[in-house]
Amino acid sequence: MPLEIRREYYICDLMIKITLPDGNVREYEAGTTSMDIAKSISEGLARKVLAAEINGEVWDLSRPLQTDAQFKLLGWDDEKGKNTFWHSSAHLMAEAVEAIYPGVKFWVGPALDHGFYYDIDMGSNHITEEDLEKLEKKMVELAKQDNPFVRSEISKPEAITYFTEKQDEYKLDLLNSLEDGNITFYQQGNFTDLCRGPHIPSTGHIKAIKLTNIAGAYWKGDEKNKQLTRLYGVTFPNAKQLEEHLAMLEEARKRDHRKIGREMGIFCFDDDVGQGLPLWMPNGTIIIEELEKLAKESEEAAGYKRVVTPHIAKESMYLTSGHLPYYQDSMFPPMELDGTKYYLKAMNCPHHHKIFDAEPRSYKDLPLRLAEYGTCYRYEQSGELFGLMRVRCLHMNDAHIYCTKEQFGDEFRAVNEMYVKYFKIFGIDKYVMRLSLHDPAKLGQKYMNEPELWQETETMVRNVLIESNIPFVEVQDEAAFYGPKIDVQIWSAIGREFTLATNQVDFAQGKRFGLNYNSAENKPEIPLIIHRAPLGTHERFIGFLIEHYAGKFPLWLAPLQVKILPISDKFMEYCVSIHKQMRAQGIRVEIDDRSEKIGRKIRDTELARIPYMLVVGEKEMNENAVSLRIQGKGDQGSLPIDELIQRMKADILERV
Amino acid sequence: MPLEIRREYYICDLMIKITLPDGNVREYEAGTTSMDIAKSISEGLARKVLAAEINGEVWDLSRPLQTDAQFKLLGWDDEKGKNTFWHSSAHLMAEAVEAIYPGVKFWVGPALDHGFYYDIDMGSNHITEEDLEKLEKKMVELAKQDNPFVRSEISKPEAITYFTEKQDEYKLDLLNSLEDGNITFYQQGNFTDLCRGPHIPSTGHIKAIKLTNIAGAYWKGDEKNKQLTRLYGVTFPNAKQLEEHLAMLEEARKRDHRKIGREMGIFCFDDDVGQGLPLWMPNGTIIIEELEKLAKESEEAAGYKRVVTPHIAKESMYLTSGHLPYYQDSMFPPMELDGTKYYLKAMNCPHHHKIFDAEPRSYKDLPLRLAEYGTCYRYEQSGELFGLMRVRCLHMNDAHIYCTKEQFGDEFRAVNEMYVKYFKIFGIDKYVMRLSLHDPAKLGQKYMNEPELWQETETMVRNVLIESNIPFVEVQDEAAFYGPKIDVQIWSAIGREFTLATNQVDFAQGKRFGLNYNSAENKPEIPLIIHRAPLGTHERFIGFLIEHYAGKFPLWLAPLQVKILPISDKFMEYCVSIHKQMRAQGIRVEIDDRSEKIGRKIRDTELARIPYMLVVGEKEMNENAVSLRIQGKGDQGSLPIDELIQRMKADILERV
Repeated sequence: MPLEIRREYYICDLMIKITLPDGNVREYEAGTTSMDIAKSISEGLARKVLAAEINGEVWDLSRPLQTDAQFKLLGWDDEKGKNTFWHSSAHLMAEAVEAIYPGVKFWVGPALDHGFYYDIDMGSNHITEEDLEKLEKKMVELAKQDNPFVRSEISKPEAITYFTEKQDEYKLDLLNSLEDGNITFYQQGNFTDLCRGPHIPSTGHIKAIKLTNIAGAYWKGDEKNKQLTRLYGVTFPNAKQLEEHLAMLEEARKRDHRKIGREMGIFCFDDDVGQGLPLWMPNGTIIIEELEKLAKESEEAAGYKRVVTPHIAKESMYLTSGHLPYYQDSMFPPMELDGTKYYLKAMNCPHHHKIFDAEPRSYKDLPLRLAEYGTCYRYEQSGELFGLMRVRCLHMNDAHIYCTKEQFGDEFRAVNEMYVKYFKIFGIDKYVMRLSLHDPAKLGQKYMNEPELWQETETMVRNVLIESNIPFVEVQDEAAFYGPKIDVQIWSAIGREFTLATNQVDFAQGKRFGLNYNSAENKPEIPLIIHRAPLGTHERFIGFLIEHYAGKFPLWLAPLQVKILPISDKFMEYCVSIHKQMRAQGIRVEIDDRSEKIGRKIRDTELARIPYMLVVGEKEMNENAVSLRIQGKGDQGSLPIDELIQRMKADILERV
Repeated sequence: MPLEIRREYYICDLMIKITLPDGNVREYEAGTTSMDIAKSISEGLARKVLAAEINGEVWDLSRPLQTDAQFKLLGWDDEKGKNTFWHSSAHLMAEAVEAIYPGVKFWVGPALDHGFYYDIDMGSNHITEEDLEKLEKKMVELAKQDNPFVRSEISKPEAITYFTEKQDEYKLDLLNSLEDGNITFYQQGNFTDLCRGPHIPSTGHIKAIKLTNIAGAYWKGDEKNKQLTRLYGVTFPNAKQLEEHLAMLEEARKRDHRKIGREMGIFCFDDDVGQGLPLWMPNGTIIIEELEKLAKESEEAAGYKRVVTPHIAKESMYLTSGHLPYYQDSMFPPMELDGTKYYLKAMNCPHHHKIFDAEPRSYKDLPLRLAEYGTCYRYEQSGELFGLMRVRCLHMNDAHIYCTKEQFGDEFRAVNEMYVKYFKIFGIDKYVMRLSLHDPAKLGQKYMNEPELWQETETMVRNVLIESNIPFVEVQDEAAFYGPKIDVQIWSAIGREFTLATNQVDFAQGKRFGLNYNSAENKPEIPLIIHRAPLGTHERFIGFLIEHYAGKFPLWLAPLQVKILPISDKFMEYCVSIHKQMRAQGIRVEIDDRSEKIGRKIRDTELARIPYMLVVGEKEMNENAVSLRIQGKGDQGSLPIDELIQRMKADILERV
């Protein structure tokens, strides 16, 4: 497309068709801005709107539209709207920094999942935590000026001249990689930045500001380069949202899975074992076993068959699957044995395909659902490792479903239903499925060149989601190489978001591995494959659960379910008999046999996050009963031992 | 010791004290032979005895004794007696080969666990299966001559002259590595061989002979060398034993775990995964899960705690444990990551030690029993790999018990009792524990230099075995580096021997890993460690079970427990309702819905080794019953569904 046509001062009196998200089409004059359109819809809307999505691309509201377009206004509740808000906030922060420390130079300032940062060469200035308040005040002052973010296109030579005069080697470096005709500046107040945009209309939208952290960051992430100062912040359209966010962060800090994991003996790391390789201690292993029990029960009921496969395989297998060379960077390096390279598996699929292929299959054998809690190993940079959330060893709730096209809908639906069933069990009230689709323009490059299969499977998946009434969003151009996929986002009890697991269609691997089944027409057919992992990995899911429950696991999942608290040693014999009865029923129980006062015992048991406390004194012993206290619910009164055990067994079985 | 004294023609009239195995001491003239002693005990014994053990070393019966000695006569039922018998049989075979093919040359001819072989350079002769009968006949003829095996000591120069004249480059090569004064020849009939011995008294003991196989074998196992002919045989003191042995081999062939494993969909191998790396298919995985359930239940009841550890660790951990460099050849090669070497674990102990070390431990925490069905990887030469019996991936029924010295006896006993409990469950009637002890002469070299700890732990282990009435044998100089150990030998239903598992004392690793607990006296103490794996590895144990049961697994362990066989389609609905009821009770059940005659269905189900068959016709349906057939037991008559399900559930729970 010639450069001229892309320029926006190219105005004419043509009419253009704007298609709104609900499918309505409105006509506007060419050159109309998104803000004009917002106002034409509602003045109230126009006051809140932050950016617009034009044919899938996010634009400034002030940018004129010259052609027909798919159109969507973006507000705070849209991921892309929020993203734009935070990127603009990074510019606002930069403006404040430059105002207070003239002469500093800026590298890049992206939005994050929760806020933004800017990498800054502070020159001879030194900035500390104490300076953050001063900067926040300056940002508030500048925000109140409600300066518009003004976009201007600029030629590469002009841009180079500008930053050469400013002696800004960082922006000059950025300019190197940009093409003439694609370069834009943004200006708000006294601050001008080389920036692709987009931005919110003006700084006045930013009402609540918190600078959260200062860190060092090597230029371009390379430790041979100069260390820059990375300033982190987060902003909101109103003060209440900031308060809630800070409260959530504080609560998340208290619920930090690394801290609770250590306190509760769930997992540990060891330098001699290696970074990102958790050792699951006895209490963590109980949680693992309970989760596996749940998964195996659900999968058994859903007709899955279990398999066990080695943790290594030859290079040739990963060349067949295409993981080599495309995924090599995420795999551990090979071991060379008898002249052959062996790799630790980073996924279980190829091993499962080999089991599919080990016997002749008929359409009568399908759907064949092979499940394994397989342990995979993936290379993550050591700087990326974080507790159980980013690890190198992953115990995956994996399975692969081999099915015909006709069976696909039911199978995919059943998988989604399993997700939803799990969400109920774990009290996950908020979740969204992200349906990632292909981009037809990238067929044969990023995506398998099977346009019909893409259409067909995407439609099937979309229909399943709609029919099942599952909340979902569609995302363009984020599918897997081999088919559309669903990523599941869940929110913990304190409102933090986690990406849990995945449910993927695969019409490529079957072909690559030469898998086939004998169809009803007695012809070899390639099966469709569904990759699914509803409980994700033990690592991430247990990390999530620790935060979600603040370590106060429900009865069925708690490493120690019951603590018996004798008021004095006189009742020990009775306590031992309760202990024995409970153990015989498979209940995880201990006696607090310390010579402490009962108040102390109760407090310690509460602090240890144990769900049930049985207080035992004279009265309880005489009545063959206990006084029950439940974590977070307090005293439940006295009840007979038999009744308690029956009730507990039922609750454990029901996983309530 | 000067050479002269070791010469046995040094005779004098001194008396020597001979201590018999029962502790009795008898006096004999120096120069008396073991055969003389045997005769002095009983002429009948003397006719059967094959060799003697003198101070732990096996000697010819004809060799004169010059000093006091611990003395034991060895017969066919002694492993070392049998070994001597088979080695002498190898010489007899060589004599026969030389008689028929003059000019052939011999390399080495050792005894095996079941028979013997000899590697032979046949020169221009070619030998085939058809020739074996001829050779057997020759052996029988030579055996009947009852030629004595005559030992002679010879100087190295004489030996060299002898084999140089014979142009025997093989024996000359062997001579190279021998020291003068240590060289002996053995002769029987017309055959003379360079041989360390010992041998049986004469060829007449060998009454039953079978040559079993011809194979090629590179000289010294190096494929760059000449290929020799390896002749295998097996011999017995009487014909009945040979018959039984051949019948057992035939039965073992029918029960070959590789054949049955394939037929039953238990496991498979795949070239792209790698040699020695079994993929466990759905039916094998059911067996794995049932075994793990058994182990977990037993270990839970015995107070074990479960852990889960990664399959890799840094080099530094294995340097600490000493596996590097001493065990390196049995480990997979390292993966180099971020400048650090990572190894696949070949054993779980170091990971468990790290979990012990992750928290401060007190004597109150002991015994701490950490259990894990850990998957280990060991390098075995590809030529050594064999089905599930020799693999590179091992799922190990592992646990480590950390305890005080005072607790050791009880813990070790409990472990042995767990073994015996398992043997009962699996109908293993014949087993022996081999107690491997250290050799005091090798303290500080092959064994940790802790003479007192060795004495103490060996005595503790021996006492436990005696007190528990467990059959055991003691073996000198086969302990682990770090302490005495028990290897468990079991015999399958057809009388084949398997080495199952191990129970080891370890007083070294605790020190190497700096493990300690705070004693009752408030001092740091190093725990004793017990390594134990009663069910061995899934690989070997399931391989054993397939042979043991001929694939006809008991109800609780069978991948498919029940097949419902409708006599015609009319009863399908009723069969489906039975199926549903059974599935709800966790019973693994299928319906044979083929349009086959009932006789064919029964036969196919028998052949598929399924334990229970439910035949369903008009009468059964009307009575809400089934006709039960049990694998190997035939028709059991009709019984109501409810009763059958209750009975099956009880049998499964009891594992009968």
